[in-house]
Amino acid sequence: MDPFDPTPDDRFTFGLWTVGNVGRDPFGDAVRPALAPSRIVERLAACGAWGVNLHDNDLVPFGASAAQRERIVAEFKAALAEHGLCVPMATTNLFSHPIFKDGAFSSNDPKVRAFALRKTMDGIDLGVELGAKTYVFWGGREGSETDACRDPRTALARTRDALDFLCEYVRERKYDLKFALEAKPNEPRGDIYLPTTGHMLHFISTLAHPEMVGVNPEVAHETMAGLSFVHGVAQAMEAGKLFHIDLNAQRIGRYDQDLRFGSEDLRQAFLLVRLLEGTAGGARYDGPRHFDAHAYRTEDEEGVWDFARGCMRTYRMLAQRARQFDADPEVRALTAAQDDGELDPLLAGFTPEKARRLRALEFDVEARARRGLRYERLDQLMIEHLLGFR
Amino acid sequence: MDPFDPTPDDRFTFGLWTVGNVGRDPFGDAVRPALAPSRIVERLAACGAWGVNLHDNDLVPFGASAAQRERIVAEFKAALAEHGLCVPMATTNLFSHPIFKDGAFSSNDPKVRAFALRKTMDGIDLGVELGAKTYVFWGGREGSETDACRDPRTALARTRDALDFLCEYVRERKYDLKFALEAKPNEPRGDIYLPTTGHMLHFISTLAHPEMVGVNPEVAHETMAGLSFVHGVAQAMEAGKLFHIDLNAQRIGRYDQDLRFGSEDLRQAFLLVRLLEGTAGGARYDGPRHFDAHAYRTEDEEGVWDFARGCMRTYRMLAQRARQFDADPEVRALTAAQDDGELDPLLAGFTPEKARRLRALEFDVEARARRGLRYERLDQLMIEHLLGFR
Amino acid sequence: MDPFDPTPDDRFTFGLWTVGNVGRDPFGDAVRPALAPSRIVERLAACGAWGVNLHDNDLVPFGASAAQRERIVAEFKAALAEHGLCVPMATTNLFSHPIFKDGAFSSNDPKVRAFALRKTMDGIDLGVELGAKTYVFWGGREGSETDACRDPRTALARTRDALDFLCEYVRERKYDLKFALEAKPNEPRGDIYLPTTGHMLHFISTLAHPEMVGVNPEVAHETMAGLSFVHGVAQAMEAGKLFHIDLNAQRIGRYDQDLRFGSEDLRQAFLLVRLLEGTAGGARYDGPRHFDAHAYRTEDEEGVWDFARGCMRTYRMLAQRARQFDADPEVRALTAAQDDGELDPLLAGFTPEKARRLRALEFDVEARARRGLRYERLDQLMIEHLLGFR
Amino acid sequence: MDPFDPTPDDRFTFGLWTVGNVGRDPFGDAVRPALAPSRIVERLAACGAWGVNLHDNDLVPFGASAAQRERIVAEFKAALAEHGLCVPMATTNLFSHPIFKDGAFSSNDPKVRAFALRKTMDGIDLGVELGAKTYVFWGGREGSETDACRDPRTALARTRDALDFLCEYVRERKYDLKFALEAKPNEPRGDIYLPTTGHMLHFISTLAHPEMVGVNPEVAHETMAGLSFVHGVAQAMEAGKLFHIDLNAQRIGRYDQDLRFGSEDLRQAFLLVRLLEGTAGGARYDGPRHFDAHAYRTEDEEGVWDFARGCMRTYRMLAQRARQFDADPEVRALTAAQDDGELDPLLAGFTPEKARRLRALEFDVEARARRGLRYERLDQLMIEHLLGFR
Repeated sequence: MDPFDPTPDDRFTFGLWTVGNVGRDPFGDAVRPALAPSRIVERLAACGAWGVNLHDNDLVPFGASAAQRERIVAEFKAALAEHGLCVPMATTNLFSHPIFKDGAFSSNDPKVRAFALRKTMDGIDLGVELGAKTYVFWGGREGSETDACRDPRTALARTRDALDFLCEYVRERKYDLKFALEAKPNEPRGDIYLPTTGHMLHFISTLAHPEMVGVNPEVAHETMAGLSFVHGVAQAMEAGKLFHIDLNAQRIGRYDQDLRFGSEDLRQAFLLVRLLEGTAGGARYDGPRHFDAHAYRTEDEEGVWDFARGCMRTYRMLAQRARQFDADPEVRALTAAQDDGELDPLLAGFTPEKARRLRALEFDVEARARRGLRYERLDQLMIEHLLGFR
Repeated sequence: MDPFDPTPDDRFTFGLWTVGNVGRDPFGDAVRPALAPSRIVERLAACGAWGVNLHDNDLVPFGASAAQRERIVAEFKAALAEHGLCVPMATTNLFSHPIFKDGAFSSNDPKVRAFALRKTMDGIDLGVELGAKTYVFWGGREGSETDACRDPRTALARTRDALDFLCEYVRERKYDLKFALEAKPNEPRGDIYLPTTGHMLHFISTLAHPEMVGVNPEVAHETMAGLSFVHGVAQAMEAGKLFHIDLNAQRIGRYDQDLRFGSEDLRQAFLLVRLLEGTAGGARYDGPRHFDAHAYRTEDEEGVWDFARGCMRTYRMLAQRARQFDADPEVRALTAAQDDGELDPLLAGFTPEKARRLRALEFDVEARARRGLRYERLDQLMIEHLLGFR
Repeated sequence: MDPFDPTPDDRFTFGLWTVGNVGRDPFGDAVRPALAPSRIVERLAACGAWGVNLHDNDLVPFGASAAQRERIVAEFKAALAEHGLCVPMATTNLFSHPIFKDGAFSSNDPKVRAFALRKTMDGIDLGVELGAKTYVFWGGREGSETDACRDPRTALARTRDALDFLCEYVRERKYDLKFALEAKPNEPRGDIYLPTTGHMLHFISTLAHPEMVGVNPEVAHETMAGLSFVHGVAQAMEAGKLFHIDLNAQRIGRYDQDLRFGSEDLRQAFLLVRLLEGTAGGARYDGPRHFDAHAYRTEDEEGVWDFARGCMRTYRMLAQRARQFDADPEVRALTAAQDDGELDPLLAGFTPEKARRLRALEFDVEARARRGLRYERLDQLMIEHLLGFR
Repeated sequence: MDPFDPTPDDRFTFGLWTVGNVGRDPFGDAVRPALAPSRIVERLAACGAWGVNLHDNDLVPFGASAAQRERIVAEFKAALAEHGLCVPMATTNLFSHPIFKDGAFSSNDPKVRAFALRKTMDGIDLGVELGAKTYVFWGGREGSETDACRDPRTALARTRDALDFLCEYVRERKYDLKFALEAKPNEPRGDIYLPTTGHMLHFISTLAHPEMVGVNPEVAHETMAGLSFVHGVAQAMEAGKLFHIDLNAQRIGRYDQDLRFGSEDLRQAFLLVRLLEGTAGGARYDGPRHFDAHAYRTEDEEGVWDFARGCMRTYRMLAQRARQFDADPEVRALTAAQDDGELDPLLAGFTPEKARRLRALEFDVEARARRGLRYERLDQLMIEHLLGFR
């Protein structure tokens, strides 16, 4: 067996919309035919994935009748059962239909806001029926090109109202479901409200039920703005708010690329896997590893499965490199904690006496400043591990 | 009198380090001689500024003796009194000296952390002595080039410890002082922890005394990452956390430019002034308008005062344009609230009955989707107001 | 009459694909119905435009029969004649059909390259039939996501072969037609070959008939990469290579926004109009001012014409502001040429004697370095003119 | 012996200013003492470098007397001879002294232009005396923050005059010296003229002696703007204009980072080394591999040599990975040329007959469009080679 073949413990998932992407873009038409959800389930299972995620309309078309919905869902459940895949996450498509052209929860039009709420309640019901434990909110159209159209504070207040409403809906239904909010700085809107995982984390702290709500950071979305994805995810983990994660690849300062995981910026991908796998200390992230990416537009269906296998293999390869790096004695020596029996207690919690002792402390500032920290050596070791030469 | 001359009600401030900037950059030497703090006070007052801000070492050199400090502070206070300027904000220089080369509060070295705490306590004392009501924290060196050197969660925990410590220090001293945290995504570090105002707002919610701590967003810092500064400031205002603001200009995706306020992206500057002045609804921000910028390196001292006057004039010009825009009847018609007596109550707070009624609601989705929102017209009106042609 | 109404002398043009844009984007469906070309011609004429441009398939669908083509072209010509619009520019759609998914002229597949050449010859014939004097080449799919697929030098060589072939085709047909090459750094490909106007200008210098070929710079495309559009256009003008120009608006580091001209970064739009209008010295650019932009997705058809009128009005408003700025005596004083009767001849063309005299020259370097250049004042005057306060 | 130890055949070079960098930045003071040039020579030789490059003032201080210059140069030559290092490249510092605060060759002040020419003639003499065969021009201050100060066309014309002058100087002196022009988009100026390698290549084509002048592309400079460095270098190589190269690492959209080669974006570094080494076809670049980078500010002198060794090791490691990738039979199969005996001649050079035959060509466009290109598989193979798992 190949050591990089995926296992259920990896909790690798794909979305119906990711491997099912037909390759339409702003400048060109579809290059691949649409795949039936049951076919996606079959092939994802064959590739070794653990689960499959979906927007409501990935499975049930917009405007389908109740009878159509029942038939479609039954077929999909049968395919899941046959191939042993689960649906750990679901979400609502609040961006494709023109009704959402100026946003959903934050729209100026009360009818649109009402429609968005209702569509989300239905989407939650669908997700729960399929077994989802996490419900993602990506407010792709919640933004603007002209800020003259709406006070951004109004947008935030409306979004808060919607999420509070939906949290209560979940509580009233006694669903076992958490929410995960996904930030993006821009595209398809000029600016999207709550543009980064940091803004989302703060917004969550202002909700009526913050304990039900975490984040779903996406590599591409933070990277578009040139922010450190690793730092953003770490802040979410430290706050106990990493409820889901979207893995892909992206170059800074570009359109949303959603490339195969690990195909750009291997260094950041390595640092991310190391953080999620907990090899450098800290607990392992135990949620799904969702690949929110799609195959190049040059590919036919076979290329789609090349792509899917590549995402999972690279994750596992990076996990092995991370374990090797963190086990390297030279790395351990260079990163050993600098404990100080006298100072550490002084720094942990103010008292007037500690302040006095800190002020009285004597040490040679210039000498301390001259010490080299050997970070060039440490970083070079990381690169050599990544390249497989240590 | 010129209608754009500054008034005390504008609360315009500059830093000693801004108008005192000597023009050194990574590729070249100083182009202007250093100015004595008392000269800066005199000339800022002549330009119409209301206050002057400072880092500890802008006034008192690193390592100065207590006697030197006393003499310098006394002279500075005399200049302030003579020219009628106040010191509304102070901060600590935790980045220039090599001791801080790998951070201050988040350094791996307990001695450096101790030194940073102590220096900040001293800086707080100095600020309070000069009358400051806001104390800013910019963690310019709290970051990394190689994330192998430190778990970002450790960095956050150390920074939290430091701020909790210092909050208690202020409380114990009974100082009338709030903290304002300033984010920046990168430079001078490869990545700085807590890179945006959003990340800072969340971090504040995890402190022991969040009520004492707000943010100090800076135009250049959010703009470097291409984020909407207006949205970030609005989120802070909505949360009651806009304690201070740093005004300047910057192009996206570049080194930290700290240009004259309004000299780049007039549209965003207009939207910002409109938000701060409350002309479009919402309360006016009543804190200082601090210009954290410096004159081009092509300037001598006279150019520095051109620069300072320009910052203030442009702010006032934009405020007038904002008032005109928001008073324009066509603008008011295009932005009138769409209240809906039936729907608005349904959207405000979940009940099972409201959910049922939302689900029963009938309306023509396609017709609603087809409506044009006239945002092109609205935005064009904004541009024509900005250009002075309405 | 409104002083900002467009005139034929402005040579304002739009593309069928710009005002005809139906608002589809990667995340959502069309929001507006397609407009018939004849309707576009009628409404553009009513708005005051001078010309309309097109891709072959904007008018004649991909795969149309010869008879269909004849009928469509005849109808279109009739509409042009009726409403007094011309077609100054035409181009080929080498990006929408999946056959071009890996490029056209640079594709690895000789059949695709052959098909692209043939389609372009047909497009040229169509353009010439409609009266076009400029034929634009935008290689939107000439790029890659994985550079392992093709040596970039091979891509350049193939593109050169295609352009040399097509230049000869035009010469053989004795068409009165110039080519204008349009660069873009990325989107819809990860990287596009010849990413900026600078790269294009050099590439042109390597063609067999460089005299037939110039550039078509687009605001959005250079701005995506954060480059100075004004500098790029100026370099093209200095080389006599500005054959066409695409005007719109864009924020740095984002997806291709194609916003209404002047709606972002008014400062750069002002500098651009000033350069094109020749108000700051240098000849006026006398080619078409083409608006390659589209209305926000929030708009219906009425909003599309708001958008079109806005593009033209803002251009004219900026032209007026540019004239005022350049006529301002204070501006003229600050920008007066520093002629030096002794030095200027020394600097113009090497001789050993001049080198000797330059070396013998005495002047006070430190004193010269200390002079302030008053650029802050100059720039502030520009902002005040822009805002309409001078 | 370690297989990644540098060899003379690698032609690895560093600048005095790179390993000699003292770590000053816009926010902080020097962290390392300056190193004597002779010490740098000794240590670089010990690390395995082949050559050392310099700005005039890296060796001879600004304003030094002729006698000082002679003594310093003699000592330096002795050190070179003792340690077996050569000086393949030299350049002029036209940016540190305040006299150049508004540019050198493009300054509005004829005295500054004269001084810059003279300083460059002296720098050329120095470089030639030390054996340099390449003279680099980086116009770091040739730019602006306010384009109102100077027409960019004037800046280009002045720069052309200066380079034409200096080419003639070199010809008259019969120096065996080529020029290499280095582009940068911004920093330390808001915008720098001729911002990319593409713009430089075109500019060279407008000089009086283009055959003497090529480019010196720098990884960090093109990457700041998010452009493909590999494509830019390939364009220069195809034109026979890659005269020198500056290797380092940089993240997109940031200040000039000048990081250790290979420490960011390993994928692009791999593709670059593969291009330079000629493993994928095309000739090997035979000029120096110059590392224009510096150690993190966290390092003391020992860290500087860690840094220098890391640059060279990573280059050699990537070269090995490139050879392995290009020798992989699966890669070769996926990238095999698609020759077409019928079509290839048709595409190579226009004749009316070829045009006719192209038009008569029949093939199934839809079928051709459906073919998958297997680029996901190809790219995944590249990543697995990079990670050392193939």
